[in-house]
Amino acid sequence: MSDQEIISQLVIPNTSKIVLLLLDGLGGAPMHPGGQTELEVARTPNMDALAAEGICGLHDPIGPGITPGSGPSHLALFGYDPVSHQIGRGVLEALGIGFDLQPQDMAARGNFCTVDDNGLITDRRAGRISTEKSIELIKLLRTISLPGVEVFVEPVKDYRLVLVLRGEALSGPLTETDPQKLGAAPLPVKALSPEAERAAALFNQWIGKARDILANLHPANMVTLRGLDKNPGLPSMDRVYGLRGAAIAGYPMYRGVSRLVGMEVLPTGDTIQEELDTLKAHWADYDFFFFHVKKTDSAGEDGNFDQKVALVEEADRLLVPPIRELGPDVLIITGDHSTPALLRAHSWHPVPFLLYSRYCRHDDVQQFSERACASGALGRFPATDIMPLAMANALRLTKFGA
Amino acid sequence: MSDQEIISQLVIPNTSKIVLLLLDGLGGAPMHPGGQTELEVARTPNMDALAAEGICGLHDPIGPGITPGSGPSHLALFGYDPVSHQIGRGVLEALGIGFDLQPQDMAARGNFCTVDDNGLITDRRAGRISTEKSIELIKLLRTISLPGVEVFVEPVKDYRLVLVLRGEALSGPLTETDPQKLGAAPLPVKALSPEAERAAALFNQWIGKARDILANLHPANMVTLRGLDKNPGLPSMDRVYGLRGAAIAGYPMYRGVSRLVGMEVLPTGDTIQEELDTLKAHWADYDFFFFHVKKTDSAGEDGNFDQKVALVEEADRLLVPPIRELGPDVLIITGDHSTPALLRAHSWHPVPFLLYSRYCRHDDVQQFSERACASGALGRFPATDIMPLAMANALRLTKFGA
Repeated sequence: MSDQEIISQLVIPNTSKIVLLLLDGLGGAPMHPGGQTELEVARTPNMDALAAEGICGLHDPIGPGITPGSGPSHLALFGYDPVSHQIGRGVLEALGIGFDLQPQDMAARGNFCTVDDNGLITDRRAGRISTEKSIELIKLLRTISLPGVEVFVEPVKDYRLVLVLRGEALSGPLTETDPQKLGAAPLPVKALSPEAERAAALFNQWIGKARDILANLHPANMVTLRGLDKNPGLPSMDRVYGLRGAAIAGYPMYRGVSRLVGMEVLPTGDTIQEELDTLKAHWADYDFFFFHVKKTDSAGEDGNFDQKVALVEEADRLLVPPIRELGPDVLIITGDHSTPALLRAHSWHPVPFLLYSRYCRHDDVQQFSERACASGALGRFPATDIMPLAMANALRLTKFGA
Repeated sequence: MSDQEIISQLVIPNTSKIVLLLLDGLGGAPMHPGGQTELEVARTPNMDALAAEGICGLHDPIGPGITPGSGPSHLALFGYDPVSHQIGRGVLEALGIGFDLQPQDMAARGNFCTVDDNGLITDRRAGRISTEKSIELIKLLRTISLPGVEVFVEPVKDYRLVLVLRGEALSGPLTETDPQKLGAAPLPVKALSPEAERAAALFNQWIGKARDILANLHPANMVTLRGLDKNPGLPSMDRVYGLRGAAIAGYPMYRGVSRLVGMEVLPTGDTIQEELDTLKAHWADYDFFFFHVKKTDSAGEDGNFDQKVALVEEADRLLVPPIRELGPDVLIITGDHSTPALLRAHSWHPVPFLLYSRYCRHDDVQQFSERACASGALGRFPATDIMPLAMANALRLTKFGA
């Protein structure tokens, strides 16, 4: 029995509310030996007060030393084993744009790209063409038909699109076509099992027809496909935890992983103020709110230490007091992984974690930071423990055994 | 998928260098209630400085409460699950003396011992006869032939030898013959599965012939066999981690476990100064260096608290500065287990651990000791996390999932 199955059997209903405030890529590292992290530098009086009243620790999204991608780290936050549930990005992207993905569908994430006369990639993002330009090109790609399946092509943002094939007997595992470097030709889709042959052949047919259509439309004269997969049909958060969950997130990827676990994805805006308004407007309607702040991660990826500090301070100032005012029974603040400006990328460092509830114990942590959380009473723990902790503190779990 | 398999799939190559400085049996305990451990008493300014600049914790070699043998604890340090890979000491000893163990070979560790007229053991180590004396006796034992198999007998050190049978259809599991007490007769080898019957019969035949040959050669008038096993053929560190690994270790056991995981075992001397010279001479040739210091463990086994303190201080003074000067990207200092002088034996106590890299976070630990490491930001973790942490800090792992 998996840990999640054990928790699931203990669920009891009540009317408590849980908020998971997620600052993407929150964890950091010092830019110079002996220095401070982004979160240590940031002035966060509201989070510090919450840390003092709550209980802290550090979580490992996947495992010690492992740098998580965003999909697996969010699955872990929601309590789903990220190793046994490895889900293609095509599925998350399709769900993220609100596409009605069916169980038999295969979805791929597509990129418009530029190839030279020899078919070698010169720009993996086709000069980052606009969403409007993409929509035009996608109209052309929608003329492609394939034998025995329905074909859907949907714009995402800028040069990104989603391709979905719908029909009988489509199955993975399939390889990706993006060679992930310049000067190489896109790869063919390969079936990694005999059952996947039909899907591979159909995706390759589609790619051939797309190439012909786009041939003279430089810079977007080719498409690469990644993360080709089916929706694995995970049990919903409602079924697992008895929670009506709502996601407040602007980016398709996070909306997608939220839909994957059965959360309602609320319409919201691009700013954290708009996200906050969405939370307030729907406060009465759900038990669990996943509140996603993207820009902290982007600043880390850009290597912009000061910007990341400023964004953490902004979240502290603009989000923490009004969210507390709503009176959640459990309020968690953490990240999905670390994105130190030092590394300009996701990293393996464990992630600061803070939980406040009426029923939590206290520890000596007085500041919300990596160093302080390292001595928090929750210790260092896997991210999949977060939902059990949230549920327990919401008094939504009964006793195990008599 | 095992943790090691996950890590293995994330490996990316680079030219960074990792040093694992292993002070055998490093962990200690206070001799008197309220007292300090060996490491707490030791003056270790170089390790303390490194602890202040790096990140610390405590590792459990096998699991809480479990006292490790040297074989499993080293396997765990190298990232191999020590519970699912239980390897007979015969294999480690054979590999450790450089014997060219083949996949079908069965190896046993042998002890010359003394038996009385009734065949009952009066000295399990035959008065600790010298290596020279052993070599003489082994010449006699090499006259033993068995039907259908090749037989190899090799000296190790003092009263210890290695016996290898080579042939078809040899298989364990087999029991050992050493009754581990005086006044008892050596036990016969027993097959613990039907496939092991042939090997059991052959080992028993060999023992019978050895008894006849040694009968009048008191004190070494009998041989016991332990750790009868085959080389399990573990994936090499190169295959698992993409690391060209080198072991600098004087004792056969550690050389053996290093060869077991595919490290190059470098010729070196008996002193830590000679080991250091070996490290410097081969610095350019490998990615990963396992540097083994044995005597800290021996002092613990002897119950010599002060001697263990002195040896830790010596390692701090003679090894840490020159190793830092080589500029490893990741430098780890730890033990394979605890050997408190108090217990005169290996113990279950978790082991102080220190990691330094350009990319590690800092914690509040200012001294390398059991007590300080207990509040380190790495927390308490299984030893099998060490290689993932080392690999991550060497920037040798890519992201898990998109």
